[in-house]
Amino acid sequence: MAQEEQKLATSRYAIGVDFGGTFVKLALLRFSEKGVKIEKFSSFPTKDYQRDALSDQLVIRIIKFKAESTYKGNRVRGVGIGMPGRIDFNQGMVFDLTNVPGWKNVHLKEVLQNKVKIPVFVDNDANLMALAESKFGAARGYKHCVCVTMGTGIGGGLIINGKLYRGMNFAAGEIGHMTLNENGPMCVCGGRGCAERYIGNRFILEEAMRQLRRGARSILREQLRNKFYNLTLEMLTQAARKKDEFSLMIWQEVGNHMGVVLADVVNFLNPEIIVIGGGVANAGALIMDPIRRVVRERAFQVSCRNLKIVPSKFREKAGIIGAGALVLTEVEKK
Amino acid sequence: MAQEEQKLATSRYAIGVDFGGTFVKLALLRFSEKGVKIEKFSSFPTKDYQRDALSDQLVIRIIKFKAESTYKGNRVRGVGIGMPGRIDFNQGMVFDLTNVPGWKNVHLKEVLQNKVKIPVFVDNDANLMALAESKFGAARGYKHCVCVTMGTGIGGGLIINGKLYRGMNFAAGEIGHMTLNENGPMCVCGGRGCAERYIGNRFILEEAMRQLRRGARSILREQLRNKFYNLTLEMLTQAARKKDEFSLMIWQEVGNHMGVVLADVVNFLNPEIIVIGGGVANAGALIMDPIRRVVRERAFQVSCRNLKIVPSKFREKAGIIGAGALVLTEVEKK
Repeated sequence: MAQEEQKLATSRYAIGVDFGGTFVKLALLRFSEKGVKIEKFSSFPTKDYQRDALSDQLVIRIIKFKAESTYKGNRVRGVGIGMPGRIDFNQGMVFDLTNVPGWKNVHLKEVLQNKVKIPVFVDNDANLMALAESKFGAARGYKHCVCVTMGTGIGGGLIINGKLYRGMNFAAGEIGHMTLNENGPMCVCGGRGCAERYIGNRFILEEAMRQLRRGARSILREQLRNKFYNLTLEMLTQAARKKDEFSLMIWQEVGNHMGVVLADVVNFLNPEIIVIGGGVANAGALIMDPIRRVVRERAFQVSCRNLKIVPSKFREKAGIIGAGALVLTEVEKK
Repeated sequence: MAQEEQKLATSRYAIGVDFGGTFVKLALLRFSEKGVKIEKFSSFPTKDYQRDALSDQLVIRIIKFKAESTYKGNRVRGVGIGMPGRIDFNQGMVFDLTNVPGWKNVHLKEVLQNKVKIPVFVDNDANLMALAESKFGAARGYKHCVCVTMGTGIGGGLIINGKLYRGMNFAAGEIGHMTLNENGPMCVCGGRGCAERYIGNRFILEEAMRQLRRGARSILREQLRNKFYNLTLEMLTQAARKKDEFSLMIWQEVGNHMGVVLADVVNFLNPEIIVIGGGVANAGALIMDPIRRVVRERAFQVSCRNLKIVPSKFREKAGIIGAGALVLTEVEKK
């Protein structure tokens, strides 16, 4: 019993919310010397609720977690929320979200804090992934870290001198919109030849489908029976693991492009470690190998010395853990 | 007299050294509320001395400045030295210099400090230009600043959270080796299609000469009388100011390329201000205008809001002033 009490005393609790375009996930997190543990979990589809109803849903579930944890004599320190868009962290205001309509200029921190009666912090999801990896994950112990998430978009979070760096307009880390080819194809952002335009989820699939339609040889032809539009990243990964030359080449190209962008990042920022996460990163060595090779080929040798390029530790949980980590970082700062 | 004494009391003195590939310049600098003033100046051609003799020359001149300043009752706080290469700032060690042979792994700080008996600090010249602009120049009062020097090479210094950021291997800020075209021409650095490969001094001139040889119409044809290899950047600037279409186009292309790189920097770091210096920047509005236009066209709109892109205040003096600023920053830190 004494031991159990001590364990609880040195543990710190926070609620993390990963507000995604598809699901909103909440967790009651316990942070201790041993690391992070998800004590309770809950989720609902984002599109089930309109904006205000969704806020109410969050309040209900946060209060429930809070109540369920206090019976052990533990105080939840606060709520952290990661969202896919641009967030004014200081004010806890959502400027807009990438794939969720109706969230323009919402003072989410204010709205929630008045109801849940514990501190609320809101930040961009890529920033929180970087925070999770930096505080408890793959980049633990490093001062200068770049965290990349490869998915529909390609986002990034920067840890500089051990702290999350957000930039003047809370817009730093847009790694997906660094240029691979100055006269390349137009990007939604207004630029040209941006990395995302080549290796965002959709563009990887589009390129693979285009090549299949043109007659590229692959075991995927049979699988898809000419319905190339059914192609998924998982199918490309599976086929590549079965040594399908075509799929291997697609992943290699993805890794090459990412390697060029990261060589730029290395030349510009000379970080200690780069952490790669997001759905595309599930391809594992299929992309990590070419990324590492291209960075070493193209970036300054001196900047590659001791540079680590590693996969995310927390993967799909990085957002929710980062949200909790944000609470601890902010509450303990004061 | 009382006023004069007070002025001296609030002034702080430091010796700044700008160790360039062509000249080594030294200055006794006075820093006061009014800004920076060069009290004494001295210089010699870099190639006049071999390494050890050059160190001795530095010692002699530093001691002379020191002696000349103390008669007023002012203590020189230290010596700052900016060098064109990679420097381990913590140890004050020169790994190597870009255009000066014989400077590999030299513990310059140690060598000098033992002789001049005041603190010595050594850093990369682009870093010191950034420090000068940040502390006393065009970026004064800004927390997040990127300083670019456009010359033979394209270098950069980063100020993050008000402090010089050097990176893990003291190699951050290599803006000239960010990619404009992933399959572009080979660069000396091992990369491809690097910015410097298009808009380093030499490549600007090479491209202009190539087009002149191919018959491009320009007032420069007459001036050069087919000796196109005599072309200089100053001639291109002068001709452009006389509305020579060809020269205007060359500068516009330089600005466009730089704009693409800086759009990447803005998307990645979301700084408050970008300061542009170096010889190429003497072209003034000829390149500043296209740079500003392209950054605004290509970078995220939100990151361009309130973003300043300005010319260097100190120009060719930025290095020497930054070297002095380094002394104050370091001595007053303790």
